[in-house]
Amino acid sequence: MSVNFAILGAGRIGQVHARAVSSVRTANLVAMAEPMEAAAQAMRAQFGCDIRTIDDIAASDDVDAVAICTPTDTHADLIEQFVKAGKAVFCEKPVDLDVDRVRQCLATVEAENGQLMLGFQRRFDPDFMALKAAIDAGQIGDVEMISLTSRDPGAPPYDYITRSGGIFRDMTIHDLDVARWLLGEEVVSVQASASVLTDPKIGELGDFDSANLILRTASGKLCTIANSRRATYGYDQRIEVHGSKGGVSASNQHEANIEIANGAGYTRPPLLDFFMTRYTRAYANEIEAFVNAVENGTEMPVTGTDGLRALELAEAALKSVETGQAVAP
Amino acid sequence: MSVNFAILGAGRIGQVHARAVSSVRTANLVAMAEPMEAAAQAMRAQFGCDIRTIDDIAASDDVDAVAICTPTDTHADLIEQFVKAGKAVFCEKPVDLDVDRVRQCLATVEAENGQLMLGFQRRFDPDFMALKAAIDAGQIGDVEMISLTSRDPGAPPYDYITRSGGIFRDMTIHDLDVARWLLGEEVVSVQASASVLTDPKIGELGDFDSANLILRTASGKLCTIANSRRATYGYDQRIEVHGSKGGVSASNQHEANIEIANGAGYTRPPLLDFFMTRYTRAYANEIEAFVNAVENGTEMPVTGTDGLRALELAEAALKSVETGQAVAP
Amino acid sequence: MSVNFAILGAGRIGQVHARAVSSVRTANLVAMAEPMEAAAQAMRAQFGCDIRTIDDIAASDDVDAVAICTPTDTHADLIEQFVKAGKAVFCEKPVDLDVDRVRQCLATVEAENGQLMLGFQRRFDPDFMALKAAIDAGQIGDVEMISLTSRDPGAPPYDYITRSGGIFRDMTIHDLDVARWLLGEEVVSVQASASVLTDPKIGELGDFDSANLILRTASGKLCTIANSRRATYGYDQRIEVHGSKGGVSASNQHEANIEIANGAGYTRPPLLDFFMTRYTRAYANEIEAFVNAVENGTEMPVTGTDGLRALELAEAALKSVETGQAVAP
Amino acid sequence: MSVNFAILGAGRIGQVHARAVSSVRTANLVAMAEPMEAAAQAMRAQFGCDIRTIDDIAASDDVDAVAICTPTDTHADLIEQFVKAGKAVFCEKPVDLDVDRVRQCLATVEAENGQLMLGFQRRFDPDFMALKAAIDAGQIGDVEMISLTSRDPGAPPYDYITRSGGIFRDMTIHDLDVARWLLGEEVVSVQASASVLTDPKIGELGDFDSANLILRTASGKLCTIANSRRATYGYDQRIEVHGSKGGVSASNQHEANIEIANGAGYTRPPLLDFFMTRYTRAYANEIEAFVNAVENGTEMPVTGTDGLRALELAEAALKSVETGQAVAP
Repeated sequence: MSVNFAILGAGRIGQVHARAVSSVRTANLVAMAEPMEAAAQAMRAQFGCDIRTIDDIAASDDVDAVAICTPTDTHADLIEQFVKAGKAVFCEKPVDLDVDRVRQCLATVEAENGQLMLGFQRRFDPDFMALKAAIDAGQIGDVEMISLTSRDPGAPPYDYITRSGGIFRDMTIHDLDVARWLLGEEVVSVQASASVLTDPKIGELGDFDSANLILRTASGKLCTIANSRRATYGYDQRIEVHGSKGGVSASNQHEANIEIANGAGYTRPPLLDFFMTRYTRAYANEIEAFVNAVENGTEMPVTGTDGLRALELAEAALKSVETGQAVAP
Repeated sequence: MSVNFAILGAGRIGQVHARAVSSVRTANLVAMAEPMEAAAQAMRAQFGCDIRTIDDIAASDDVDAVAICTPTDTHADLIEQFVKAGKAVFCEKPVDLDVDRVRQCLATVEAENGQLMLGFQRRFDPDFMALKAAIDAGQIGDVEMISLTSRDPGAPPYDYITRSGGIFRDMTIHDLDVARWLLGEEVVSVQASASVLTDPKIGELGDFDSANLILRTASGKLCTIANSRRATYGYDQRIEVHGSKGGVSASNQHEANIEIANGAGYTRPPLLDFFMTRYTRAYANEIEAFVNAVENGTEMPVTGTDGLRALELAEAALKSVETGQAVAP
Repeated sequence: MSVNFAILGAGRIGQVHARAVSSVRTANLVAMAEPMEAAAQAMRAQFGCDIRTIDDIAASDDVDAVAICTPTDTHADLIEQFVKAGKAVFCEKPVDLDVDRVRQCLATVEAENGQLMLGFQRRFDPDFMALKAAIDAGQIGDVEMISLTSRDPGAPPYDYITRSGGIFRDMTIHDLDVARWLLGEEVVSVQASASVLTDPKIGELGDFDSANLILRTASGKLCTIANSRRATYGYDQRIEVHGSKGGVSASNQHEANIEIANGAGYTRPPLLDFFMTRYTRAYANEIEAFVNAVENGTEMPVTGTDGLRALELAEAALKSVETGQAVAP
Repeated sequence: MSVNFAILGAGRIGQVHARAVSSVRTANLVAMAEPMEAAAQAMRAQFGCDIRTIDDIAASDDVDAVAICTPTDTHADLIEQFVKAGKAVFCEKPVDLDVDRVRQCLATVEAENGQLMLGFQRRFDPDFMALKAAIDAGQIGDVEMISLTSRDPGAPPYDYITRSGGIFRDMTIHDLDVARWLLGEEVVSVQASASVLTDPKIGELGDFDSANLILRTASGKLCTIANSRRATYGYDQRIEVHGSKGGVSASNQHEANIEIANGAGYTRPPLLDFFMTRYTRAYANEIEAFVNAVENGTEMPVTGTDGLRALELAEAALKSVETGQAVAP
């Protein structure tokens, strides 16, 4: 059996998922929905899929699964529509910026016995998977302390920032999910500090561009997160896990594995500087994992609850910044 | 315009090229030839291409280009057949193990004004391309000395060894091509030493499993090559270039970019241990470069003459081993 | 002119400083005080210095400077005695575990116009100095965010822990000093979380073995600190500084700069696992800097106030752990 | 018992050894000989040793051992004089540039039952010792193939070049000794190629500045050596050993263990660029090993024969360059 796929939204991430679906042997990209005519035609030309309306796709018998790649404020509604239509749903994070709306949506998914996977692609990055596998194999003993570093090459456009829910809900949320994934326990306390260091305009928009967090679980495991919206050297994405028997780290990915030596020193190229390039394989693996779960009827590897928990931690972080207190999510 | 492709041979490398053709936007895989029924059917199922005989493909109006992925002893004949049929030809190295047969074949290609590209995929590895680009950009000044290291995880099967033409024609030939590519001058002298260190049976078959070479150009540029048929740590593929203003090196690729630390030390995973995994992107880039050259009618990025020169150097190396003398190719 | 030195205390760190003094061309080790006869004799045999009582040294005309290497609870008294005696004083951190006593002692130093240098040796580590020099040279622009990682191979003996003032005053204090040194601004807020993860007995003694901190300056610069009393892979001592124009990091020091590759991967030796080995050159540089300041009558490179500030930050961290709140030091 | 030392020659390397002797607990530097008054006085001031003539030292009862740090053309005579005087002799390489003179001198040493150690300091570099220890511990199985890279930051003065015996006797000789040390078998064949690439004047003086060698042992072990008199990035000193069960490599030493990241990439400082800085610890370890051998009456860790063998290999390399043939040393 193979999984027939439709993609909602032909934007940047919609194209990434279209390519990913095309490369999964057990998946077929049959349709997509996209209001912009030119973008829709380009997708059809490249992937040979039908262009349909969202409602048509929901009603299509030849579609088993959809990937929701539309703007954030449509996610919750579309998830509800498609689980009601009996489709397996892959949705880019977040379900919604409002925690209550997320809870309501997840209740619908549950009531419908729906299949929902959230797009936290970092869990599917080959290096991070290898790091997780080393932990699961007991190679570092019990996880005790984690350091996550995520820095973007540059801030998103101002109008995106205003719609993003702020750095914690938009950017840190990925680290919060990674932290939960690796800690193996729920976080009970969040401490955070945030600043505007790269661009005062970001502060004027009510957001931050730099943040440090400490997460703590009930058993005392600790995790720091360091975020910045600016890194001149590329897309800085690192994980370090310290355990009772050792440690494991995943390093950054450079543009090429070369090094040039001269009187100024030994220079490796900057990092891959775009999340789509950095996480190319992660996106492909993520869709493949979704397809496998749909095909085999197994549990989704990243659930709606994972999305909710990460969002709750992001809110706790924001509250900690505002109050100076450790906040229970 | 797009290039219609046929692949001759559905073996391991044929499949690699089929996937590569599929991923090039301006190429279509229309047909393949494969005598083994099961392999042919598998290719058809996966890539949706026709199965035809080699002669049918040569006569097909809807085929612009072919990739020859058949056994070595068929290469020269097929190249001649297909250039005469007016097809652009991509052929896995070598054209032939016999230098005279290679010369004859290339003469035919020239007489037919044919387009022939040889499959030295290392030139298309992203890291090696970045290294070459650094040299071409003048970042290390004039190239003075190169060190090439190529070690296979293990020796090929004995029956392959007997048909391979020996380690210099089979394995070192890739390094010889890389050396020519990077030196920017023809080699005028080859010194070599070779041993049987990993398996006496390889010696009984008249071959070596370990070799060191020194190449020298007319202007005195130097290059060492170190080859072994055994490397417990994976597929060891490194380039180091020393120049008048600096140096540049390309490092190995590990299974994952992680490091585990414990009382025994800091351990990174072994290297990718299979040439197809190690050179996945190189194979794709190589086919794309071929397609671009066909489409634009430009010069082939690796020519039949490149194959001939590398083979001549391999022969010179063998002769140096036998005589102890520096040999002019 | 050269500086005549006496060392108070022939313990582990006293010996380190004796060796350091011996290697500074402009310093002479003339005397030491040590109540343990055997230790005193050993020092005399090795360094050829006199053995005198502390009071004799204070009264010695041939002593210009002393290094206080006695137990912590004697530091403040000895500092006061020796500045009153007109000697330049180098003292191992901390001046005292009690902030009020430190303030009182520093007041005496000031009243006597004394010269006091505190022993925060990390500022004199060649790698950390190179990192600081890169920052000072503007190579990363404005400092925005720092990550400090310090992990000990193992916890100190229980009786030391009970006298140590706790992990923040004993261990984190070095990172707090490094943070102040690199941030270039005073810290205005400390958030901390601490756990007992390596040995429950440490918790029973009222201490922690694992800690994470966030420091924040008035302008919003941020710093995380990660501490653990256990690291199976050696003495983990790293600094990472992220700035407006780039970043700079100082890596760990391994037992040797070799790497062994086999089927299990690529393994470098563990880290140097003892602070005296790791910071050998730092200790020597530190004493040399002290001697230079004494000789030239210039300002001490690490002052008593530096010791006080770091201690205040340690206290703030402890209070943050206890209250969950961000604490102003 | 401790070893009383005299040093012949207060030049650069004489000072290095004086410092080394001073730091060995079981050695005393009692005297030195140096014709240049100022240099002699400086040594006396720094090390507190007597200044004597060479003949006085040979006749001194209070001298057990000497380190010969005088110009090369005096080495053989001095070795003979001092072994006849019953002193243990440490001599900088080479014994002489002429193989016959070396043989004659070594015959005298043997006849006198003298103790002679040659100064091949690389064997005492901590990283190279760790590499050797890994091999000896069986961690890479049988040694099969070695790659040695030695590049100087710049060529020595022309007048030194004219007296040096040429690149093979002066520079490559260190690699030849390392090769013998690591191969564990004598070399039976040398192939070499050499060029003038960095400075035509070096060619006019009859020397080369760039060289590649292949060494081969009777059992077929192989070794390449890559030398250059110019490396813009510092003093390039690397060893790589490939064995039946794995490989081991020793990396270069940078000025500091930091890395700066910005838009241009990730840059580590250049290498230590002076042999005395790079091999500081090697020189100290070397003298300590000599002292230990003298003190315990054990075999010298590097013998006169080691010096002879390396010189023979250097001569074979030169002959191979001249004839193009593989040469048996």
